[in-house]
Amino acid sequence: MTGYVRELALRAREAGPVIAALENAARRRLIESMAQSLRHRSPDILAANAQDMARGRDNGLGAAMLDRLRLDEARVNAIADALMEVAAQPDPLGEVTRREVRPNGVVIERQRIPLGLIAMIYEARPNVTADAAALCLKAGNTVLLRGGSEARASNAAIADCLHAALREHGLPEAAVSLVSDPAREHVLELLQLSDLIDLAIPRGGEALIHFVAEHARVPVIKHYKGVCHLYVDRAADIDKALALLVDGKTSRPGVCNALETLLVHRDVAGHFLPTALQRLRARGVEVRGCERTRGIVPDVKPADEGDYAAEYLDLILAVRVVDDLADALAHIARFGSDHTEVIVTEDSAAAEAFVRGTRSSAVMVNASSRFNDGGQLGLGAEIGISTTRLHAYGPMGAESLTIERFVVRGDGQVRHAESRG
Amino acid sequence: MTGYVRELALRAREAGPVIAALENAARRRLIESMAQSLRHRSPDILAANAQDMARGRDNGLGAAMLDRLRLDEARVNAIADALMEVAAQPDPLGEVTRREVRPNGVVIERQRIPLGLIAMIYEARPNVTADAAALCLKAGNTVLLRGGSEARASNAAIADCLHAALREHGLPEAAVSLVSDPAREHVLELLQLSDLIDLAIPRGGEALIHFVAEHARVPVIKHYKGVCHLYVDRAADIDKALALLVDGKTSRPGVCNALETLLVHRDVAGHFLPTALQRLRARGVEVRGCERTRGIVPDVKPADEGDYAAEYLDLILAVRVVDDLADALAHIARFGSDHTEVIVTEDSAAAEAFVRGTRSSAVMVNASSRFNDGGQLGLGAEIGISTTRLHAYGPMGAESLTIERFVVRGDGQVRHAESRG
Repeated sequence: MTGYVRELALRAREAGPVIAALENAARRRLIESMAQSLRHRSPDILAANAQDMARGRDNGLGAAMLDRLRLDEARVNAIADALMEVAAQPDPLGEVTRREVRPNGVVIERQRIPLGLIAMIYEARPNVTADAAALCLKAGNTVLLRGGSEARASNAAIADCLHAALREHGLPEAAVSLVSDPAREHVLELLQLSDLIDLAIPRGGEALIHFVAEHARVPVIKHYKGVCHLYVDRAADIDKALALLVDGKTSRPGVCNALETLLVHRDVAGHFLPTALQRLRARGVEVRGCERTRGIVPDVKPADEGDYAAEYLDLILAVRVVDDLADALAHIARFGSDHTEVIVTEDSAAAEAFVRGTRSSAVMVNASSRFNDGGQLGLGAEIGISTTRLHAYGPMGAESLTIERFVVRGDGQVRHAESRG
Repeated sequence: MTGYVRELALRAREAGPVIAALENAARRRLIESMAQSLRHRSPDILAANAQDMARGRDNGLGAAMLDRLRLDEARVNAIADALMEVAAQPDPLGEVTRREVRPNGVVIERQRIPLGLIAMIYEARPNVTADAAALCLKAGNTVLLRGGSEARASNAAIADCLHAALREHGLPEAAVSLVSDPAREHVLELLQLSDLIDLAIPRGGEALIHFVAEHARVPVIKHYKGVCHLYVDRAADIDKALALLVDGKTSRPGVCNALETLLVHRDVAGHFLPTALQRLRARGVEVRGCERTRGIVPDVKPADEGDYAAEYLDLILAVRVVDDLADALAHIARFGSDHTEVIVTEDSAAAEAFVRGTRSSAVMVNASSRFNDGGQLGLGAEIGISTTRLHAYGPMGAESLTIERFVVRGDGQVRHAESRG
C-alpha cells in the first residue's frame, strides 16, 4: 500500500461538499464548460491518443481493443455532445420524492442527495473518463477515475480538459481525480478505501469485474456480461420475430445488449427457423443449435452448454428449440445473466407470464434487446448497465448516483410526552 | 468450508421463484398465519427461551444482553402483532412506479421485483427472527437467518412456528432458512456465497458489523452505530430545545436513534445550558463538556475527542459549545455516523442550511431524533436503519427489500431500421 490512491481519494472526498452544495444551474454550466473545453483542446487529446495507439500497436493490442481506444475529431465531438446532453438533463437532486404528514403533525419528506465519492474502474475506452465525470458531477458527486493503462495518455488529456473547466468555475480540480499511475496495485488500494469511497463501479471484461468483486471492501455495483435471450413464442408474429432477431444479433454484436441466444417454441420452430437462420447467415452470423434445431436446419453446428452460457460479443448465435414458455424461462434462469430478455408474442397472457417469470434488469415484449440502454430508455445517458440486484438494476443514469434520505420537519414534537417540562 | 450453509442457501434460493410468484393476498395470509402460529405455540417458544436464558446466566451474559434475549408472553404477543402490521402493509411489489412512452412508441415501465435471497446476521434479540422473515416474505424474497448463538433455542422455536405456517400454505419451508449450527465459521461461509445471496444485512454491535464488512463477498448494507447530534441554534425556541434534548437522550438511551452529543450556539449557551444540564442530571444523565461548557456549568466533566466519537447507548451526553451553524456542521461531518441529526431553530434559513449541510440518513428540524424509526416514519416496520449510502439510507421497510427493473412493451420496434426485411 503506497498511500498514493488514499491521498487522491481523500482530496476527492474533501471536494465533495463543494460539489454537493452547487445549485443545478451551476452543475449544468460546469458540465457545459467541460464539453467546450474538450472541443477546444481536441488537438491535445488526439495527440495524446496517438501516443496510446502507437504504444498499443507496439504491445500487440487486438484490432477490437485498438478500435475502442482510438479517438478522432468526430469521436471527441461525440463525447462533448454527450456531456451537453447530461448537462441538459433534469436535476436529479433536491427533489422531494414523497411527502407525508404523520398523525402527530410531523412532516416526513424523502429527498435525493449525492452518494458521495464514486470510483470508476474501467478499461480501454477513453470516453468513459468524460462520461463518468459528467454523470457523477450532475448528481453532485465527486469521482475517482481509474482507466486502463492502454488509454493513460488519452485519459490524462481528457482529465486536463475537465480540470480546466473546474478551475474556470472556481471549483476544486480534485472533484474529478484521475489515478494516472497505471500500476495494478493502485486498484487494490482503491478497493480497500471503505472509509472514503461510497461506491465502486467496474466496467469492462469479466476478468476485471471478477478482480474487483474479489478484492473490494467498498460497495460495488457490477456491470457484468449480457447473455441476452430472444424467445419466439407459439403466438409470435413471425415478421416481428425476424426483425427483432436480426436487430438484436447484428446491429451491434459487440455490445452487452446484443442477443446471444435464440429460444424458439417447438410449435413454430419448423416455420420460423429456416427463414430466421437464412437471414442471419446472409449477415455473416454463425449459428450453433440444439439437436431439434439441427433436425430442422441440418447444416447448423451443434451447441453445447458452454455456448448457452457464452457472451460471444460476436456474430455467433446459440439456438435452442424449447417445449413451451416455462421451458424457455427455465433455460433463462439457468444460463441468463440478469441483463435483457425478449419475448415475441401476440398473446398478452404469455407476455405477462414471461415478464413475471424472469428477474432480469430489462424484459422486452415485442421490442429489441438493443433498447436496454440509458439513452433509449429515456435516462439521457448512462454510467453503465447494472446487473447487481441492489441500488440500481439496468441502465444507471444520474439519478442512480443519488440516494433518498429522510427530512423530518416538526414543531417540537417528542416521542415520549414525559420529555416535556 | 463445510458446505452446510451453501446447502441451506441453495434451498432458500430455489424457494425464491415460488415466493416471488405469490400474489400480495397470499403473502399477506402467509404472514398472518405466521403470527397466529407464534401465538399458538408461545409455550414452546417460552420453554426454548428459558433454556437460552439459563445458558446465558451460566455463561455470565450481562444484564442488558439477558434483557434483550428474554421473552415472555407479552413479548411474544408483540412479535405476533408486529407480523400482523407487516401483513397489512401495502404491497411493495408489482407496482409500476414510472411509465413513459418513447417517440418510437415503445412503452417504458419501471416495476418493483424482489431482491432475491437476503441473509440476516444478527445478535441476541430473537424477535429479529420473526420480523426479518416477515419483511423479506412481504417483499417476495426468501431469507437465510443467522442469529446469535445465545438465542439459538429461541430462534429455532420461532423458526418452527414460521415453518408450520409455510407448510400450512403448501409453501417450501426453505423460504425461511435458519443457520441453526452456532459455529462462527458458518458466518464466514455465508459471506462468500455471492452466487446465491443477493444481500446481507448485519445487525448488532460494532464488532459484528466490522467482521461482516471485512469478510463479505456478498453485497452488504450496514446498520451501524448512531452518533446522533442535537444542535441548538441561536434562533432556537428554548422550550422546544429542552423537550427535544430530554426526549432524545433519556426516553430510551440504549437505542441507535438516541442522542449522544449536544451542540449549542455560543450566543444561547449561557442561557440554555444551565437549565438543560440540570434537567438531564435530574434524570440521571452524566454530562461531559468542552471548556466553554465547563465555563458555564463548572461541575461538568471534561469531554475529549473519544467522547465526541462515542455511541454511549447509555445515560451519558457529550456537550460542545460551537461558534455558529457552520461550526456545528463541521463537528457533525467529523464525528457523525450518518445516522440522525437534529436542529432546533425558528429561523427557516438556518434550518435549510442545516438540512443541506449534512448527509445523514435522517435530518430533523424541531423534531426528536427518536423519530428515526420505520414505524414513526410511516414505513410500518423496519428491518433496520441503514447507514450505508447505497440502495437504502435510513429505516428500511419492505419496499427497501425490492429493486426497480425495466419492462419495455413494443410492437416489434427495432433499433436499426435495416434490421427489417
